[in-house]
Amino acid sequence: MVAVKSPLNDEALKIAGDALQGSLVDLIDLSLLAKQAHWNLTGRNFKVVHEHLDEIVALARSGQDDVAERAVAIGVNPDGRARTVADRTSLSQLEAGYLADDKVVAALTEVLAQIIARFRERITATDEADPVSQDLLISIAAQLEKQHWMFQAQV
Amino acid sequence: MVAVKSPLNDEALKIAGDALQGSLVDLIDLSLLAKQAHWNLTGRNFKVVHEHLDEIVALARSGQDDVAERAVAIGVNPDGRARTVADRTSLSQLEAGYLADDKVVAALTEVLAQIIARFRERITATDEADPVSQDLLISIAAQLEKQHWMFQAQV
Amino acid sequence: MVAVKSPLNDEALKIAGDALQGSLVDLIDLSLLAKQAHWNLTGRNFKVVHEHLDEIVALARSGQDDVAERAVAIGVNPDGRARTVADRTSLSQLEAGYLADDKVVAALTEVLAQIIARFRERITATDEADPVSQDLLISIAAQLEKQHWMFQAQV
Amino acid sequence: MVAVKSPLNDEALKIAGDALQGSLVDLIDLSLLAKQAHWNLTGRNFKVVHEHLDEIVALARSGQDDVAERAVAIGVNPDGRARTVADRTSLSQLEAGYLADDKVVAALTEVLAQIIARFRERITATDEADPVSQDLLISIAAQLEKQHWMFQAQV
Amino acid sequence: MVAVKSPLNDEALKIAGDALQGSLVDLIDLSLLAKQAHWNLTGRNFKVVHEHLDEIVALARSGQDDVAERAVAIGVNPDGRARTVADRTSLSQLEAGYLADDKVVAALTEVLAQIIARFRERITATDEADPVSQDLLISIAAQLEKQHWMFQAQV
Amino acid sequence: MVAVKSPLNDEALKIAGDALQGSLVDLIDLSLLAKQAHWNLTGRNFKVVHEHLDEIVALARSGQDDVAERAVAIGVNPDGRARTVADRTSLSQLEAGYLADDKVVAALTEVLAQIIARFRERITATDEADPVSQDLLISIAAQLEKQHWMFQAQV
Amino acid sequence: MVAVKSPLNDEALKIAGDALQGSLVDLIDLSLLAKQAHWNLTGRNFKVVHEHLDEIVALARSGQDDVAERAVAIGVNPDGRARTVADRTSLSQLEAGYLADDKVVAALTEVLAQIIARFRERITATDEADPVSQDLLISIAAQLEKQHWMFQAQV
Amino acid sequence: MVAVKSPLNDEALKIAGDALQGSLVDLIDLSLLAKQAHWNLTGRNFKVVHEHLDEIVALARSGQDDVAERAVAIGVNPDGRARTVADRTSLSQLEAGYLADDKVVAALTEVLAQIIARFRERITATDEADPVSQDLLISIAAQLEKQHWMFQAQV
Amino acid sequence: MVAVKSPLNDEALKIAGDALQGSLVDLIDLSLLAKQAHWNLTGRNFKVVHEHLDEIVALARSGQDDVAERAVAIGVNPDGRARTVADRTSLSQLEAGYLADDKVVAALTEVLAQIIARFRERITATDEADPVSQDLLISIAAQLEKQHWMFQAQV
Amino acid sequence: MVAVKSPLNDEALKIAGDALQGSLVDLIDLSLLAKQAHWNLTGRNFKVVHEHLDEIVALARSGQDDVAERAVAIGVNPDGRARTVADRTSLSQLEAGYLADDKVVAALTEVLAQIIARFRERITATDEADPVSQDLLISIAAQLEKQHWMFQAQV
Amino acid sequence: MVAVKSPLNDEALKIAGDALQGSLVDLIDLSLLAKQAHWNLTGRNFKVVHEHLDEIVALARSGQDDVAERAVAIGVNPDGRARTVADRTSLSQLEAGYLADDKVVAALTEVLAQIIARFRERITATDEADPVSQDLLISIAAQLEKQHWMFQAQV
Amino acid sequence: MVAVKSPLNDEALKIAGDALQGSLVDLIDLSLLAKQAHWNLTGRNFKVVHEHLDEIVALARSGQDDVAERAVAIGVNPDGRARTVADRTSLSQLEAGYLADDKVVAALTEVLAQIIARFRERITATDEADPVSQDLLISIAAQLEKQHWMFQAQV
Repeated sequence: MVAVKSPLNDEALKIAGDALQGSLVDLIDLSLLAKQAHWNLTGRNFKVVHEHLDEIVALARSGQDDVAERAVAIGVNPDGRARTVADRTSLSQLEAGYLADDKVVAALTEVLAQIIARFRERITATDEADPVSQDLLISIAAQLEKQHWMFQAQV
Repeated sequence: MVAVKSPLNDEALKIAGDALQGSLVDLIDLSLLAKQAHWNLTGRNFKVVHEHLDEIVALARSGQDDVAERAVAIGVNPDGRARTVADRTSLSQLEAGYLADDKVVAALTEVLAQIIARFRERITATDEADPVSQDLLISIAAQLEKQHWMFQAQV
Repeated sequence: MVAVKSPLNDEALKIAGDALQGSLVDLIDLSLLAKQAHWNLTGRNFKVVHEHLDEIVALARSGQDDVAERAVAIGVNPDGRARTVADRTSLSQLEAGYLADDKVVAALTEVLAQIIARFRERITATDEADPVSQDLLISIAAQLEKQHWMFQAQV
Repeated sequence: MVAVKSPLNDEALKIAGDALQGSLVDLIDLSLLAKQAHWNLTGRNFKVVHEHLDEIVALARSGQDDVAERAVAIGVNPDGRARTVADRTSLSQLEAGYLADDKVVAALTEVLAQIIARFRERITATDEADPVSQDLLISIAAQLEKQHWMFQAQV
Repeated sequence: MVAVKSPLNDEALKIAGDALQGSLVDLIDLSLLAKQAHWNLTGRNFKVVHEHLDEIVALARSGQDDVAERAVAIGVNPDGRARTVADRTSLSQLEAGYLADDKVVAALTEVLAQIIARFRERITATDEADPVSQDLLISIAAQLEKQHWMFQAQV
Repeated sequence: MVAVKSPLNDEALKIAGDALQGSLVDLIDLSLLAKQAHWNLTGRNFKVVHEHLDEIVALARSGQDDVAERAVAIGVNPDGRARTVADRTSLSQLEAGYLADDKVVAALTEVLAQIIARFRERITATDEADPVSQDLLISIAAQLEKQHWMFQAQV
Repeated sequence: MVAVKSPLNDEALKIAGDALQGSLVDLIDLSLLAKQAHWNLTGRNFKVVHEHLDEIVALARSGQDDVAERAVAIGVNPDGRARTVADRTSLSQLEAGYLADDKVVAALTEVLAQIIARFRERITATDEADPVSQDLLISIAAQLEKQHWMFQAQV
Repeated sequence: MVAVKSPLNDEALKIAGDALQGSLVDLIDLSLLAKQAHWNLTGRNFKVVHEHLDEIVALARSGQDDVAERAVAIGVNPDGRARTVADRTSLSQLEAGYLADDKVVAALTEVLAQIIARFRERITATDEADPVSQDLLISIAAQLEKQHWMFQAQV
Repeated sequence: MVAVKSPLNDEALKIAGDALQGSLVDLIDLSLLAKQAHWNLTGRNFKVVHEHLDEIVALARSGQDDVAERAVAIGVNPDGRARTVADRTSLSQLEAGYLADDKVVAALTEVLAQIIARFRERITATDEADPVSQDLLISIAAQLEKQHWMFQAQV
Repeated sequence: MVAVKSPLNDEALKIAGDALQGSLVDLIDLSLLAKQAHWNLTGRNFKVVHEHLDEIVALARSGQDDVAERAVAIGVNPDGRARTVADRTSLSQLEAGYLADDKVVAALTEVLAQIIARFRERITATDEADPVSQDLLISIAAQLEKQHWMFQAQV
Repeated sequence: MVAVKSPLNDEALKIAGDALQGSLVDLIDLSLLAKQAHWNLTGRNFKVVHEHLDEIVALARSGQDDVAERAVAIGVNPDGRARTVADRTSLSQLEAGYLADDKVVAALTEVLAQIIARFRERITATDEADPVSQDLLISIAAQLEKQHWMFQAQV
Repeated sequence: MVAVKSPLNDEALKIAGDALQGSLVDLIDLSLLAKQAHWNLTGRNFKVVHEHLDEIVALARSGQDDVAERAVAIGVNPDGRARTVADRTSLSQLEAGYLADDKVVAALTEVLAQIIARFRERITATDEADPVSQDLLISIAAQLEKQHWMFQAQV
């Protein structure tokens, strides 16, 4: 089986590959976590938050695909299997069972802030290594920061 | 926090709830597994299989949402968190790294067969307990069996 | 004037016809009741509940058409006239005048629970008599139970 | 619970409110009556009249929403409950059971003529009281008169 | 060449396979017959019946595809070749040449009644054997019975 | 440069022109004010009010274009420059910085009431002068009064 | 053959009927004239004016249909035959052969002004006779005056 | 003003130009005549024939544009003015006033037959002179003959 | 029952009618044959060929309708009944059961070549008899030859 | 009321906030100025420039929303009120009254050049401070420079 | 590698192949030339001509694909490589650098006339050889002649 | 004729201009080369590769337009004429005649790698000179690298 030939040198490849794989785990877990809240939500703001969470799912899913395909395009195999995500994620996890709307809003605000902090580091890290990957990370960060504001504004 | 009041009695609720939660884990892991193959695929049939896998992802994602919302609608909390999926899934897992197209086709054929066998059991189990949940499981099974045929036909 | 020739025998026809006519009255009154609340609503959650009620109206209207056309397709004349609905409905009615959002949410939760209980009985009743009508009742029940959960979750 | 503050003085409000509430009852009963005919129709022109009746339903339903929301916008609570419609409607009612196409065409022609006569009076009545409500009544009357012509042309 | 591995045991497979193959022949011949009438129609109701027949064609064509793909999905080869259809169909056939609209309406009413009777038997037969195939047959029967009413109503 | 030749006499032109120019300033400032609130909003109802405000912006922007193009069509130059709007607007202004959702709802209710009062006067004023301009003002007033009700209902 | 029963008395019918028939001739000839210019145009602004003329055609055609159907809806037979239009039109006619763009712009400005003057009279005439017809004439006049401005602005 | 330089020699231009100008008059008058019938129609088949006539209008209008633009593209000025159409048309004209549906069907059948006969001659005439114009005339003839069949089939 | 009056003389009618009826049988059998292969296909290229075959079905079905409606438009009754197609088709038939992808590609290449040869003859035959029918046959031949190339290219 | 917690440090926040607030004023005034010209335009190129100006309005409005939401997402309150825009804008202002097309083209070319110069400075300024905001400013600058070329090309 | 088997004999193949290959070179160069003008255009009519040129590009690109796929469908390999186009094109070439709008209009008029002359010859040449290819060339010629008129009209 | 005034200084202009012109030649030749392969392709994967190549064409064409319009927006005349492309391209060229699918996949992989290497250099070169042009080059490089991976994966 052929390996995809990378347009990057080894060092740049390592930096960009790590940034993309880390982003992949963040975004897959974000999508699972937002769906968990979407399903188990309760409270007076149920309908609005229920629908808002699906915007997060959509963002996280399209972001997943973009970072994973970017990884393989530069010659790094993305790993988005259930076990990998469960073991490597560093997002604060939700409890099982019903979730009150105000707690979900607070939890999403926190989780988005965690991911954003790591995206900011990855943007800095890839500046030299691969401006094409950096540009993708910037565009996802812009969306995450917009959603972070929207959740924070309703805390 | 209020629990959703179930239209089912306790026994029926247990049966239907187990069937739906089991389906949820199957379908989430199916979506992750199909994306993993979608990204790491190689081989002469790359383009076709790459796109075919996204049909599986779409089916698995819409199925997830339907079974999870059906669970909460009858008063059972669905659990689709990364840790839960990783620990409870019984699907054959993919290796990390590049995946040859013929192996992916064989793996999907096998994985779909595993899920279908469990859906068949759940359809039988829910016949008495909850015909509404059963009808949902039947409609998802129909799609899974159609995809199973399509992958099997190209082995 | 010709009567539509039924594919069912007389007993099955009676059972299925009663189930469908009963569902028709439930669904027409549900649509009128949800519109009444849609128009006279007040409260902080006005916008969300106002729009959510139109989803109920849409569900109830498409359900009406399906059960009524199913009735005539098996040779039973559906009756959805204003007088019939007013006289035969067993749904809890709304007061005239402004309606507070939390009371509307509670009222809809209650009304949906009433209709769902009757649909469950009709699904059991038609199992032998007419599986085609039963399948229609199951699909409407699935939507009603989903909406019931959504209203209940925000109580 | 707050009452909506009206942009109209009391006398104008009474006139416009009566015109809108009367129109609401007319239009709800028109929609129920057209659906009743839509379902129970027979005759050589079944297909065309069956579909034509749904244009009446669509017109009546969008008109209902507009007059009811206009009523509440000027501070009058619309009442579109089943009992209210059944008790206050002055439309000629349909028989139960199958309805021959030519009788339905004649019945609709008659019913539309009745409603149009009342809309003409309401348009005159609201000229001074509320030109905004009048403009809405004029636009609905235009559609009713167009449909009246179309049914009359096929008598 | 691989045979598709069936999720059903041999007996169930035989029952479901026969039901689906029989349905396939019915639906292909229905589509050919409706097109024949669509083209050779005459009479005052030409335009309406001409277009109505294309709804039958659309229903029959999408039904064909669904039953044939369901057959192969459970491991049975569907046979929809011209010779097979001509030899096995049991539908009343149309004369060559111009066809008057009232005769076509009567013929379609009759043909649909024949097919519906067989679908009702197949629904009963597959109840135990394969609820997934049964669900498909129920959904097609619902459409056929709706069309049967519509043609019968205009006789 | 040619002046557009007016279909109105001088007196009518003065009346209609003033009504349209006044409406233009109201609607431009309404769009700026609603955007200001859209961006700086906070509170539990953030998401709903944030999106509701964009409906106001859309209404105000399409209204602006209609009144300005109506003005020039009758031979009066509309003036919608920043300085003109800032100097001539009589709408209650918002504070800089974050804006709580309940205060925004109250502010919009008030601002819409102010504009509606002026539109009512302009509708009266243009009745004789220019029924074409009046009809435009009526249609915008209908939308403003609908929004006024919706904001007032959630105070 | 039945005559459509008018909702208007004889005098009002005469006034409204004349206004609508006059408008019909104006709008049919406007559409023919604009197409004539659309086809035979020359000059540096060919492309823009060529496309602009089709906006006039679209406006004139939808206006024709509206006034003619309004006429028959009130019981007056519209007459839009070629001979009628040719004999009764009072629009300034175009020469045969190529037409320079600046002359076309001037001609359209003039023709629109002629039609607008008559629409203004018809709006006044129908105010008492039939406010529903008047409202239609106002809405067409608004579009004609907008186009008149646009052509005049480029003279 | 420049004349468009023709790709044809003088003789061919004369033949093709005459064929196109003749077709233009036929198609404009067909559109006016079909609209006249569309508006003044009565009878049991009103709705179907009313809508069918608008298919003729659409066909005639798009045909007009194509033949006129083809004429000018080869350097011949099309003439579609009201006076020209009224004077040169050879179509059988409709009476003023109400038109019964069966008479309209017969009239359209006749009028289409007249136009088709002339298109057949023009197709023969342009075979040598201009195959590009011929191809356009063939495609319009195909549509006219299809409509001719449809009207004839319902006589 | 009226026969459709042909725009062709008897000899031309015979030639064009035979060409169209022959094409109808070819195209109906092509659609049945392509569906048979679509359902029973196996092999590594299953997915691509499976979907490609539906392009053939779509082409054959729209072609059927066009040639059959063209036949009746010139006064010849098309015959597309199952028995007629089975008896008169001259296409090479497929075996029952699974069909390997490379054999299907070869079979389609062969079948398309057979049909194309007959269309070429019909195009020549109708040149004098009916250029309108010829133009339709040319446009279908163009599509068949394009598909023939595409299948041949992958042999 | 909570302040949105910024992902930036204070210095970076100051730089990015100033860049975004400055851009907001530029873009709001650009939208008002382009609308002013859109409405008051005259000259032979009226239609083209009139429509071109609405492309500027669309660009400026979507840019406004993006920069203002970006500002609040990083914790800075955007200020887009009428008074703020009027006082802080540095764009060359338009005269009241009719505006000739060539002068408008020149004015827009000049105004766009002014804004572009400031965007270039802001892009440089935010390079270190906030690459996410910088990326937004770059994408808006790209559109502004494209429009600048298009206006300049027609001077 | 297999050659595509031609439905034409050798002589016909040579004639049709040459016609199609010649058309391919013409249409590729036309698309490149129109884009060159699209980008480098200046002058008062910049916006209109800039957009008009993209209609030429679209026409030329879809024409390219059609003639090239037609060539390979009859067994001739099309050659559309950069070197082939540059060496074989006989279109008048544009200068590098800015291009004034009136010169571009004149140049396009000239270039289209050149291509049309060759298409006319190819239409004649293929009449016997391949009526299917001829029909394609006629349809492209019709579009080219329409555009030729439009450019010529604005010279 | 006016030159477009650049927002860049001379040195930056030279760097950005060269990068954009070089990209233009690469992308035009890529589009011609991919079309050449699209047309002359053979082999078992014909259908998939044939369609995949059109994705390359679409990417290359939209990229062409963007880089050329970016060039002129900064004041540099793009040159995309056939002769320029043929003389300056450095892409490996395809042979004339049929092209086997595996060779085309290898050729595209190679050609994309060549272009990507040059885009990487241009991205570095424009970092200081013009971040707006750089951002465009990055976005095109991202798409080229994604396609490069997809072709390489199927080698």
